[in-house]
Amino acid sequence: MKFCSRCGGPLSFRVPPGDHLPRHICDACGTIHYQNPRIVAGCIPEWEGRVLLCRRAIEPRRGHWTLPAGFMENGESTTEAAMRETLEEANARVEIIDLYTLYSLPHISQVYLIFRARMLDEAFSAGHESLDVALFTEAEIPWGDLAFPTVHESLRHFFADRRAGRFQTRTGTIGAAPWQRPAADDA
Amino acid sequence: MKFCSRCGGPLSFRVPPGDHLPRHICDACGTIHYQNPRIVAGCIPEWEGRVLLCRRAIEPRRGHWTLPAGFMENGESTTEAAMRETLEEANARVEIIDLYTLYSLPHISQVYLIFRARMLDEAFSAGHESLDVALFTEAEIPWGDLAFPTVHESLRHFFADRRAGRFQTRTGTIGAAPWQRPAADDA
Repeated sequence: MKFCSRCGGPLSFRVPPGDHLPRHICDACGTIHYQNPRIVAGCIPEWEGRVLLCRRAIEPRRGHWTLPAGFMENGESTTEAAMRETLEEANARVEIIDLYTLYSLPHISQVYLIFRARMLDEAFSAGHESLDVALFTEAEIPWGDLAFPTVHESLRHFFADRRAGRFQTRTGTIGAAPWQRPAADDA
Repeated sequence: MKFCSRCGGPLSFRVPPGDHLPRHICDACGTIHYQNPRIVAGCIPEWEGRVLLCRRAIEPRRGHWTLPAGFMENGESTTEAAMRETLEEANARVEIIDLYTLYSLPHISQVYLIFRARMLDEAFSAGHESLDVALFTEAEIPWGDLAFPTVHESLRHFFADRRAGRFQTRTGTIGAAPWQRPAADDA
């Protein structure tokens, strides 16, 4: 971030008066440009005991399986975002049951919100960000080919809670996955 | 948003190829500048059955009572953000118990995450964004002078759940408060 998006003036990176962190500040018009974590909203769509997963057609993690999820947009609610992403990536219509997992990923400044959801019918197909979409029983989940730790943890808890007969909202912090960490040579 | 923060070039507002919403796009370097909802993280700090509230020293809603909460920063977790805000606004140290409320405010593109929390000791005082900080029993809560609907709803559920002896995570969408809606003359 080098230029002010409001006036085009040059930015400096310093702590504003009364603040405690450096921010991008416009030397011309005085605007402070804050940067904040982004929300990834998605769901665990269930149909007759099976769970709907998408195989990613885009990077990162192209070819790996994921829950339908994506960046929340301005002007929508978290559940609207989760339903929209499920429609876009899997052409599946769901109703949201409840919040299931809340994960912070401070290394990439993201917050995941994954809801439990019920598919309204058995219709689904690959959206343009998916190579494939399929329903999986617990035994069929491709645990070694999941795209993200948030997906792995959400599914692991989901099946354990389902067996226990009681779902509870899970929260936590997840660090960088092995493929996200810089190689030892870079450290 | 008029200028590219990366190269200073002019921005146009149009739908990028493969997208479905208009974005600010740099005509010079091609960067797409996404805008996403911001997270407000905070908590309900409890000490011997009473709840800690802050009277706001800043707009919006200066002079009204609120839970310690504020914008989550890049590089931190949601619980770290809630603890930091509590320290900044109330000089109070807490440990987080669990997520309690998740509210979407689509009209201002914010998502509130309020946790239940236990104060580590009885020490507290007004931070620079607070005029006053105080502990309240349920009967003492200034219901008519609360700053935001999110605070009202979080506290209302909190005391009801506490009486019922069982806390459950609450999620929902909250529209504009009366003081946030444009006057009829502006409509």
